[in-house]
Amino acid sequence: MADGAALDYVRDQVGRALDEFLRRQRGVLPGATAELLPGLDALSGLLAGGKRLRPAFCYWGWRGTGAMDCPQLIRAAAALELLHASALVHDDVMDSSDTRRGQPSLHRRFAAYHAELGWRGSAESFGMGAAILMGDLLLSWTDEMFHSSGLALDALSRGQRVLDLMRSEVMAGQYLDLLAQATGDGSVASALRVVEYKTAKYTIERPLHLGAALAGAAGGIPRAYTDYGLPLGVAFQLRDDILGMFGDPAKTGKPASDDLREGKRTVLLAITQARATPQQAAIIDRTLGDPNLDEAGVANVRGVITSTGALAECELMIDRHLARALDALKDAPITAEARDALAELAVAATARHD
Amino acid sequence: MADGAALDYVRDQVGRALDEFLRRQRGVLPGATAELLPGLDALSGLLAGGKRLRPAFCYWGWRGTGAMDCPQLIRAAAALELLHASALVHDDVMDSSDTRRGQPSLHRRFAAYHAELGWRGSAESFGMGAAILMGDLLLSWTDEMFHSSGLALDALSRGQRVLDLMRSEVMAGQYLDLLAQATGDGSVASALRVVEYKTAKYTIERPLHLGAALAGAAGGIPRAYTDYGLPLGVAFQLRDDILGMFGDPAKTGKPASDDLREGKRTVLLAITQARATPQQAAIIDRTLGDPNLDEAGVANVRGVITSTGALAECELMIDRHLARALDALKDAPITAEARDALAELAVAATARHD
Repeated sequence: MADGAALDYVRDQVGRALDEFLRRQRGVLPGATAELLPGLDALSGLLAGGKRLRPAFCYWGWRGTGAMDCPQLIRAAAALELLHASALVHDDVMDSSDTRRGQPSLHRRFAAYHAELGWRGSAESFGMGAAILMGDLLLSWTDEMFHSSGLALDALSRGQRVLDLMRSEVMAGQYLDLLAQATGDGSVASALRVVEYKTAKYTIERPLHLGAALAGAAGGIPRAYTDYGLPLGVAFQLRDDILGMFGDPAKTGKPASDDLREGKRTVLLAITQARATPQQAAIIDRTLGDPNLDEAGVANVRGVITSTGALAECELMIDRHLARALDALKDAPITAEARDALAELAVAATARHD
Repeated sequence: MADGAALDYVRDQVGRALDEFLRRQRGVLPGATAELLPGLDALSGLLAGGKRLRPAFCYWGWRGTGAMDCPQLIRAAAALELLHASALVHDDVMDSSDTRRGQPSLHRRFAAYHAELGWRGSAESFGMGAAILMGDLLLSWTDEMFHSSGLALDALSRGQRVLDLMRSEVMAGQYLDLLAQATGDGSVASALRVVEYKTAKYTIERPLHLGAALAGAAGGIPRAYTDYGLPLGVAFQLRDDILGMFGDPAKTGKPASDDLREGKRTVLLAITQARATPQQAAIIDRTLGDPNLDEAGVANVRGVITSTGALAECELMIDRHLARALDALKDAPITAEARDALAELAVAATARHD
């Protein structure tokens, strides 16, 4: 099953499980359904997008141990999509981002709703409040969906410990990211540490570990998943950095200026700064966090990234990290099917065109 | 054990369990301890306060079934304090509140930290971002503490369903509250519905149900807890409304103007509006949500609340609801010890002086 169709299969099944979960939630609070529906609709819209990357890694982490495909595991894996949606909703509030997955971000959507209906008070405050609450709801639902997946209680208990660690790590990573923006720490080391927590562990290593823990595997299998997951996570984030700066907004779902405007200390920019002349460094410094950044400003930064050779260095780093990840798969004590699927996922997650 | 000392006992034990949990968290991410410590210290400070009301109801919900006192249950009950702290942190961000439990609110604390260290960008945005993340962490820790309590897996699985419902209800209640502020729906019915979700179920009924579910009780016991918990919840919230308007800020931990400035549609104000002359109603309308509200403005509102007879009506409602709650205890099929403790908790939670 491990060809492109295998990845599509997981994506479809996870989408169905999320639909079913959301449908069930509509009936949970019968006394407040009418008022809550616009919020639930907005969440359904947000959850309809997404590449289901974390559930896919969880699924193949499970399958790699020899455990069989089953709807219970799909539901537990799909819970990671709720966790991720929660992080995106709160991230967009924190960064004041206007768009997400090519649509208005949740807080903007609620603010527009407030304005449309001519309600009292500040539409922006209402949007922010509603989005914070929706993110909290998604975070609570992560556990609800995980624990109502139908997997055995001892499996869930093993998985819970990975889920706990994963959440602490991603929240710590986000805080370190915030700190780096605030302190202006633009070193490559600092950016790579944020990537380790926020991406490599959260997106790849821990979802694989979760699948393995649910299946009861310990020792060599989770170790192999770490050896594959951490370099792949770096490669994946570097690709994301590059797409964020040079990609087609229609495909990334965000304008290219967003990372810059928010002052994100990406690895791509850290490498650029490390290679830049003082004049080039000043261009980046001036641009990072500038709320009025225009297209010309973005073009200037693109020019510096390219001419310093940082872009080429990042492409090389992606190749090297991807190779390490694929190499780790070779001796991994996992099923051949999972090995093939994980190799395919690695290539897909780091490909130039999304 | 059901005298004042019994309530102190639960409070102390819950405090200890939280301390132990927080201490453990300090070691979870060794690679980022130094940067995360100020955040963890702020959370410890916040969690040191609080009346441990929800854990107390969970504890007595468990004891009422005849189940024995044990540290595992204390830990599971203490998890509710993390959930509540998360709600408070996010609430303060949503309401732009400056103080909580007599100290600066978490987002203000992080903003001050940013300003003190002279970091880049907006101190306010940093404070908001950090507080959103800390609230998310507290919400995640709720599950972590609950599931690592040491209770049997089947007990936790039964409890999980109550915890799921409780979180959905409180978040829905908060959203309905936000809606009422936005639409200007000042009816007593709307305010009472918010109280049902945000307070009566969340603070009293569901914690009792959680204790009962963990102990494996169904039927008569949870029904009795509902009969006791829902009216007590209304009485408790009305007392809170009155303390918020007339109480000593040194005891409530918040200035009296906060509810008004935030435009909170409390039951006390809804009753006032229903009894007010057009002139009196105009005073309340003008004041609600006024960011520049001063002491004279607060005094005006106090005058209207008193002279319309709304204050006296609320006191009567508290007495009536408290009596119903105490009455429900009489025939409740629970242990005598729990009956006494719950009667005491009911009186303490609705007393004029906190």
